[in-house]
Amino acid sequence: MAKKSLIHRLVILGLGLIGGSLAKAAKERGLVTEVWAWGHREASLKTGLSLGIIDHYSLELEDVVTDADVIVICTPTQISEGVLQRLAQIGVAESVITDVASVKGNLLAMAENAFGAVPDNLVLAHPIAGSEQSGVAAAKSELFEKHRIILTPTGETNPTALEIVRNLWKGVGGDVVEMGVEDHDHVLAATSHLPHVLAYALVDALVTMEGRREVFPNAAGGLRDFTRIASSSPQMWQEIVLANREAILDAVNGFLLHLTTIKQHIETGDAEAILETFTRAKGARDDFAALLAQQNENLEP
Amino acid sequence: MAKKSLIHRLVILGLGLIGGSLAKAAKERGLVTEVWAWGHREASLKTGLSLGIIDHYSLELEDVVTDADVIVICTPTQISEGVLQRLAQIGVAESVITDVASVKGNLLAMAENAFGAVPDNLVLAHPIAGSEQSGVAAAKSELFEKHRIILTPTGETNPTALEIVRNLWKGVGGDVVEMGVEDHDHVLAATSHLPHVLAYALVDALVTMEGRREVFPNAAGGLRDFTRIASSSPQMWQEIVLANREAILDAVNGFLLHLTTIKQHIETGDAEAILETFTRAKGARDDFAALLAQQNENLEP
Repeated sequence: MAKKSLIHRLVILGLGLIGGSLAKAAKERGLVTEVWAWGHREASLKTGLSLGIIDHYSLELEDVVTDADVIVICTPTQISEGVLQRLAQIGVAESVITDVASVKGNLLAMAENAFGAVPDNLVLAHPIAGSEQSGVAAAKSELFEKHRIILTPTGETNPTALEIVRNLWKGVGGDVVEMGVEDHDHVLAATSHLPHVLAYALVDALVTMEGRREVFPNAAGGLRDFTRIASSSPQMWQEIVLANREAILDAVNGFLLHLTTIKQHIETGDAEAILETFTRAKGARDDFAALLAQQNENLEP
Repeated sequence: MAKKSLIHRLVILGLGLIGGSLAKAAKERGLVTEVWAWGHREASLKTGLSLGIIDHYSLELEDVVTDADVIVICTPTQISEGVLQRLAQIGVAESVITDVASVKGNLLAMAENAFGAVPDNLVLAHPIAGSEQSGVAAAKSELFEKHRIILTPTGETNPTALEIVRNLWKGVGGDVVEMGVEDHDHVLAATSHLPHVLAYALVDALVTMEGRREVFPNAAGGLRDFTRIASSSPQMWQEIVLANREAILDAVNGFLLHLTTIKQHIETGDAEAILETFTRAKGARDDFAALLAQQNENLEP
């Protein structure tokens, strides 16, 4: 069943793994007619062009965003503020603007700051997908299949703009849901940002201990799995924790409360309380694993 | 090249996954002539017999340990104290006694208490291996291949007893090292027990949060991997944290120091300090992953 292409020109700002994968997937599925891109690193743009992921690029932002149907901001957070300010200067009221960042509240504030008010054609989005690899050369058109995509529209968001962004992500196989900006940032702080902070903190504590005892050679595969996320990009995670500072501090404090309680139970040897906590946690974790398995099953074609 | 069987009768006390796998591996590789077993649950012993993993069993401890060459205590920690006291009453000075528990200090104290002094024929051991499954029916003869086996002899340990235990574990494919009891318990507290406590505490914190927001359905595969160990047996982990209380509290406190420092850096927005910590942790974690990969490579036959 052929579908009318809803988007003529998709524009990716910052062509890396996520933007490249979205462009590739959207083109392969006939959701867009052409993809243009802008970025600071011409090498990435050239690679995207030679791989057929994009059709045109420029190092001048204005060249690519004029007449764009959908503009996807895929730049690192520290660059996004400048990008939004340039977009406000250029004027992009006729385009839908969206993004792919892990934190939404700070981007919303940046947009409000750049445009004077949050523009109604801005639809913030967060695809919960990634890969150990990075860069446009690693782009995969199936990256978002069966993955959750969280959209965070506000009360002011234009319904047509929202519909276009929703259809784009559904079209590349995503499991699209909507959530408030604050809810998104708190949920992600707890389920993703906090675990990264814990993994970095644990490995750092082990490094200190390693000075006194041979630690790592006696650790098992369990620690390797538990600390895998501590091998993520330090730069990217530094940006994320600073971008979502308040929600992460809330999550860290919530966690500290639970850890301190367990610590007290260990100190006092409260076997019953320890068993109760571990049992409750195991039940929730087993339910979560089953839920993830079922989500993937339901999404099978 | 045929090897002389060093052990005539191997006796497993508490026949589950670990004891069953050791028995199976030792028999298949011709390291033992016969395996006897004792336990509280006759069903497990019958299963072991029907699978050919053991050759004889009894529900009376005395029946199996008399004339044993090597006795392996594989019972849950809470039962081990009673087992050691019965062994002391029966008299097992002619056998080598060893175990497979995750914590060594408390067993050493129990043995000292039961025998009056730590017997020189006792060689405590910890195979760092396991499986999601449990029970003798899940026994696998390759469970210990390329896995680290930590022996914790004391200054009083009989060298021949140590040699017999070392050869048994090497014989089933283990990467055998020696370490002091206190070092073992601190290293394992940091690399295994602490991560389990953190995973249980995190899931428990998320459960509390779930009451206010939809948390788990918006979490990704990263959280599933990070919390996998929270699906471990609550009973077993309750026993371990109580058995290794002091070392675990040390590890929790060391971790809290690092987490609190990172938290302060997030609060004050100290981008440089955050990047420095994350970068150091990533480096150590990458080295650790490479080390594990190389260990396995070196152990290839």
